[in-house]
Amino acid sequence: MLSENQIKFLERSVEIAKQGMLSGKGGPFGCVIVLNDEIIAEGCNLVTSTNDPTAHAELVAIREACKKLNTYQLTDCEVYASCEPCPMCLGAIYWARVKQVVYANNRHDAAAIDFDDNFIYKEINTEDAAKQIPFIHYPLTSAKELFNQWQIKENKKEY
Amino acid sequence: MLSENQIKFLERSVEIAKQGMLSGKGGPFGCVIVLNDEIIAEGCNLVTSTNDPTAHAELVAIREACKKLNTYQLTDCEVYASCEPCPMCLGAIYWARVKQVVYANNRHDAAAIDFDDNFIYKEINTEDAAKQIPFIHYPLTSAKELFNQWQIKENKKEY
Repeated sequence: MLSENQIKFLERSVEIAKQGMLSGKGGPFGCVIVLNDEIIAEGCNLVTSTNDPTAHAELVAIREACKKLNTYQLTDCEVYASCEPCPMCLGAIYWARVKQVVYANNRHDAAAIDFDDNFIYKEINTEDAAKQIPFIHYPLTSAKELFNQWQIKENKKEY
Repeated sequence: MLSENQIKFLERSVEIAKQGMLSGKGGPFGCVIVLNDEIIAEGCNLVTSTNDPTAHAELVAIREACKKLNTYQLTDCEVYASCEPCPMCLGAIYWARVKQVVYANNRHDAAAIDFDDNFIYKEINTEDAAKQIPFIHYPLTSAKELFNQWQIKENKKEY
C-alpha cells in the first residue's frame, strides 16, 4: 500500500518521536512533512519542555514547513506522523491543506497510554451544554457587524 | 446569563479581532484569556501576516497566556473568543484544560463568510477513507514499541 520511501518517512517520524521522548522534550510523538519525496520539516512534541500545550509534533512540523516555504498553505505536502493526529492537529492539517496524511499508532493506542486524543474526538461534536469544558454561545451585534465588514473589505488576503 | 465583566471580555475579543483585521494581520478573529476576572493574554488571527496556518486567535492567546504563567495548563482560565473555536482551537482549549469558553459568532456565521470551520467539524469524525484529505493508518512495530517505552519510562512529565 505504501511505497518503500513512504514507509521510511513514517519510520523517521517514529525515530524523531523517540529522540524527543528520550531527551525530555515531551510526549512520544513525531512528525515529518514531505514535499516531492523529500523531508522539508520535522517536529517532535515539545509541550512540557516549552510550556506550550499547542506544541504537538504536527503543529511544530507544519509551522516549520510553512516558515521554510514562506507560505501558509502546504498544498503539495504529505504529513507522516508517528500517531494519528489529535483534533487540534487534524484541524491544523486541514487549514494547511496538505495532500495526504499517514500515521502509525492510532487514537486508541494513545488512549491506552493515557493521552486524551480519543476523549477530545468524542467531545468535539458534543453539544455545547454537554461538553466537559462548558462552551457558551453569546451572540453580539458587534461581532456580526465585524463579519459583515470582512465580507465587504477590499484587498483582503483569504485563506 | 453572563456578568457585565464577562460581556466586556467578549466585546474586547471582538475589538481585538477588528484591530487585527483592519491592520492586515489576518482574518476577523480575536481572543482573550481571563484569570481571576483579569485579562492575562490577548491574540488576534495572524495566519496570513506570519505565514502560519496555526496562528488562530485562540492559539496565539493560549500560547501567550502559558508563556506568562509559565505553565502548559490554564486550569483556572476562561477563554473569550469573537467566534466559536474551530476544531484546531477546540483541541488546543482541551489540551490547555481551561475552565470555560464564551464565544460570539458561531461556525455557521464563519461559513457564511467563507471560513472552513464548519467543514472541518464535519470532516473530523468522518472515516479516514472518506475524508477530503486522505488519512492512511499504517501500524508499525517500532511505533507500538515506542508507546510501550513511554509507559514504563521513569521521571516522565505527563500532560
